[in-house]
Amino acid sequence: MKFGMCVTLQDGTTHCLGDVDELFSVQSISKVFTLSMALRRVGDDLWKRVGREPSGSPFNSIVQLESERGIPRNPLINAGAIVVTDHLVEQAGPEAMITELVSRLRQLTDDDSVSVDDRVASSEAIAGARNRALAHFMQSYGNLRNPVEQTLAAYFSHCAISMNCRQLSRAALFLAFDGRDPVSGQQLISGEFCRRINAVMMSCGHYDNSGDFTFRIGLPGKSGVGGGILVIAPRHGSIAVWSPGLNPAGTSLVGSLALEALVKNTGWSVFV
Amino acid sequence: MKFGMCVTLQDGTTHCLGDVDELFSVQSISKVFTLSMALRRVGDDLWKRVGREPSGSPFNSIVQLESERGIPRNPLINAGAIVVTDHLVEQAGPEAMITELVSRLRQLTDDDSVSVDDRVASSEAIAGARNRALAHFMQSYGNLRNPVEQTLAAYFSHCAISMNCRQLSRAALFLAFDGRDPVSGQQLISGEFCRRINAVMMSCGHYDNSGDFTFRIGLPGKSGVGGGILVIAPRHGSIAVWSPGLNPAGTSLVGSLALEALVKNTGWSVFV
Amino acid sequence: MKFGMCVTLQDGTTHCLGDVDELFSVQSISKVFTLSMALRRVGDDLWKRVGREPSGSPFNSIVQLESERGIPRNPLINAGAIVVTDHLVEQAGPEAMITELVSRLRQLTDDDSVSVDDRVASSEAIAGARNRALAHFMQSYGNLRNPVEQTLAAYFSHCAISMNCRQLSRAALFLAFDGRDPVSGQQLISGEFCRRINAVMMSCGHYDNSGDFTFRIGLPGKSGVGGGILVIAPRHGSIAVWSPGLNPAGTSLVGSLALEALVKNTGWSVFV
Amino acid sequence: MKFGMCVTLQDGTTHCLGDVDELFSVQSISKVFTLSMALRRVGDDLWKRVGREPSGSPFNSIVQLESERGIPRNPLINAGAIVVTDHLVEQAGPEAMITELVSRLRQLTDDDSVSVDDRVASSEAIAGARNRALAHFMQSYGNLRNPVEQTLAAYFSHCAISMNCRQLSRAALFLAFDGRDPVSGQQLISGEFCRRINAVMMSCGHYDNSGDFTFRIGLPGKSGVGGGILVIAPRHGSIAVWSPGLNPAGTSLVGSLALEALVKNTGWSVFV
Repeated sequence: MKFGMCVTLQDGTTHCLGDVDELFSVQSISKVFTLSMALRRVGDDLWKRVGREPSGSPFNSIVQLESERGIPRNPLINAGAIVVTDHLVEQAGPEAMITELVSRLRQLTDDDSVSVDDRVASSEAIAGARNRALAHFMQSYGNLRNPVEQTLAAYFSHCAISMNCRQLSRAALFLAFDGRDPVSGQQLISGEFCRRINAVMMSCGHYDNSGDFTFRIGLPGKSGVGGGILVIAPRHGSIAVWSPGLNPAGTSLVGSLALEALVKNTGWSVFV
Repeated sequence: MKFGMCVTLQDGTTHCLGDVDELFSVQSISKVFTLSMALRRVGDDLWKRVGREPSGSPFNSIVQLESERGIPRNPLINAGAIVVTDHLVEQAGPEAMITELVSRLRQLTDDDSVSVDDRVASSEAIAGARNRALAHFMQSYGNLRNPVEQTLAAYFSHCAISMNCRQLSRAALFLAFDGRDPVSGQQLISGEFCRRINAVMMSCGHYDNSGDFTFRIGLPGKSGVGGGILVIAPRHGSIAVWSPGLNPAGTSLVGSLALEALVKNTGWSVFV
Repeated sequence: MKFGMCVTLQDGTTHCLGDVDELFSVQSISKVFTLSMALRRVGDDLWKRVGREPSGSPFNSIVQLESERGIPRNPLINAGAIVVTDHLVEQAGPEAMITELVSRLRQLTDDDSVSVDDRVASSEAIAGARNRALAHFMQSYGNLRNPVEQTLAAYFSHCAISMNCRQLSRAALFLAFDGRDPVSGQQLISGEFCRRINAVMMSCGHYDNSGDFTFRIGLPGKSGVGGGILVIAPRHGSIAVWSPGLNPAGTSLVGSLALEALVKNTGWSVFV
Repeated sequence: MKFGMCVTLQDGTTHCLGDVDELFSVQSISKVFTLSMALRRVGDDLWKRVGREPSGSPFNSIVQLESERGIPRNPLINAGAIVVTDHLVEQAGPEAMITELVSRLRQLTDDDSVSVDDRVASSEAIAGARNRALAHFMQSYGNLRNPVEQTLAAYFSHCAISMNCRQLSRAALFLAFDGRDPVSGQQLISGEFCRRINAVMMSCGHYDNSGDFTFRIGLPGKSGVGGGILVIAPRHGSIAVWSPGLNPAGTSLVGSLALEALVKNTGWSVFV
């Protein structure tokens, strides 16, 4: 069984366990970084096109989208993340947007090897019938501004970014320190936006499993179907865990058990 | 306009603003105390009969109850709180259960005036058609163990408890200190259960508005249609606010604005 | 295997096959007769409290009742039939209403043995948690005018009427001849109301199986969980079939196969 | 106000009223003819990919499609009609399929002017976001066999066929005579399939308004958003009515009133 876990602390040191250098597809974890980019660019206007309530349903459900007339429940389900991507594509164009995201991740991790796995991106571009349905559906409500295939190409690309645990926990460190990277001292996003991203991760980071994750781990997090989970421990550090093998809600089974143990030992739950 | 706010700190001092001695009906805020009692009595077995996921729907919705075969989404929506009450009624009988709850609240607040407003309780007993529907519906799935009217009588009673902001913030102080009342030193509930109650309040404390509350306030809380809101700031203290006038999700409009301001000034958000 | 089928023709002769004298509980088939009574008494005002669209869901589903604010989809699902009964109870009182229904059935069949099986009625009165939920739910929307238990007592009684195939096909003969009993010559209901009852049976007579029944049998009908099915062949006659053993939608399995064969041989489908 | 109505009788004579020569877009009425083609080609295998239950929801709803895993409720809602078209495209290719349909309609009406309005077809091809969503959604469940755009091109084309009332009532005459055109004597479809098409029109011909149409008109029919309605009076004849101005379910308002009057005067309801 493959398993890796990294904890990056305020001073930038990263504590590692297991397969921490193995690259995996970050998938939905990338939504945290696109949300961060979009908030920095357009601010609270984003919330006109996407909500911040948990969906109570699977990541690719289309039901609520109909009753709520094309406004996705939150930016961490597929429909909501497609809207966020659409926003970024509208501002920068599809390729520049991906270039900017990757270069930002390289800078945060000080590691130029972060990149999109084109093979993964194009296999999703072929198989993504459900995401296409979501995108056309939102377009029918006027909540998509670019051609469907253009927005989806960018969406498939950022989901196909490859990272390892070491890079991922380092990249997200600023989210544990109110938007400021504690090593470089750079304020990457305002404190207010940082708290909001964490809040949305807490409420909505794990689809219809979000309440259970909050109940068991007590920290904001985001899972990806590649087996990765990113978790933020405010004022303490950031954590990346990876292990294939998912529960029915698409969260790494072993990864979430490891996080539960970590939180128990560190007392990092926000609810203590 | 009526408005009161109290903040109780670790040393037991309570800082007050406005109409803090005015009694109001705690309504759904009582669910936090019944959940605490039930976890202490039966522990994690409770989760066989009720989930811990946000519902994504109003407090008295019956829809998810059907698709999930009589298991309410969480203990803070009406259906879930009725199951928790049913559990307590099964253990202690309907009257003893209310007596125990009231005496516990009196002890926590060191104030014998806390009591059930019988007039409110009986008016709900008459008008509670929707709660009756929920209860019979759960009974049809075998998830109610006492006669419907017996469990509902206890449920209507604990929702009709009258308290003021001063009492409410004092009573919940133990939830901010990992289950231990920091003044008396008494461990009222295990640290683990305390964290879980806070987690459930964070995920599910405000019906289909829970994500928005987490987004704006960043603290676990529970609203009641009487205009009260109870909020827990872990390691800092507990806060009770009261002001009639509700948003569509049943949360005090002015109360939540006041909490937003308080959190901004204190930096008590768990996401900082 | 128990099986009985009766066909009553315009001249009042009844053609019998199998266990046609065995009494069974008519259950939901009684809804056709209460609908007929209610239309005669209050006319089209009834449609303010109940719709006439197929529900697309099981007989006791509560979901649509919520999104449509307490107005049941049609009078042949449980919620709708409870509203119809509530209407009749309001007019006549619960006991007189049952007395009138039974005496009308005795007159139609010229057989004084038709009666309510009190043992069945009271077992439903005990077990009817789901129907209680539906009734309280509609009451919460103001769509129930009598005390819930009073209306339900009448509802459970008329569902517990015992009849055999011979009686049932004779009792419904007027529905095949535009509301006029062709033997006695008595106009029991206006032609317009008769056509509407048949239309509702065609659209909604078999819960989420109504389309399939129309597809296979091509005649208006109503099934009951006691294993009976009543079918109307306009201008030809009425048919009662009975055989325990239900499909997932609650329609007699063997009964519907027998009807399919009958329609094939007689050419009585309304679609020829 | 534009209004036309034609009734074609067994001898082929057509009785006309109003704007019966004005061409309109048949839109969803074309689904009756594609269903007829598909049943003739593949028979009952079609029902593996599409149901025959009323949907209880609007013509382009995506909700049930999710809970029923990509199998549309019936062939007369958009999703179901797209599956039927996909079936025909698979057999014949997209262009040959349209050619065959148009040539069949020309033969039935003995009028070579029946054709696809390419301007309408291409405007739908541009605007059809919702239908694209439905198609990709079904593809995600494996219930679409051709490329989405290929099937949709054929679907948009057959919805864009232009006909007038005179042509439409003549073309459908065979459905009133058990599949046999009573003028030419040609058996166009088996009697069994004909009855099934009529049954599906009766149960599902008007989206979430089907029960009401059956209740008021009492005949199988199919409406189109172009303002046309096709109605079959078994053993009597076929009726086409056209008048722009739709009710919320997409059925011609004036057209359905005219049909109600016609049925009252002729006694053609199948429920008499």
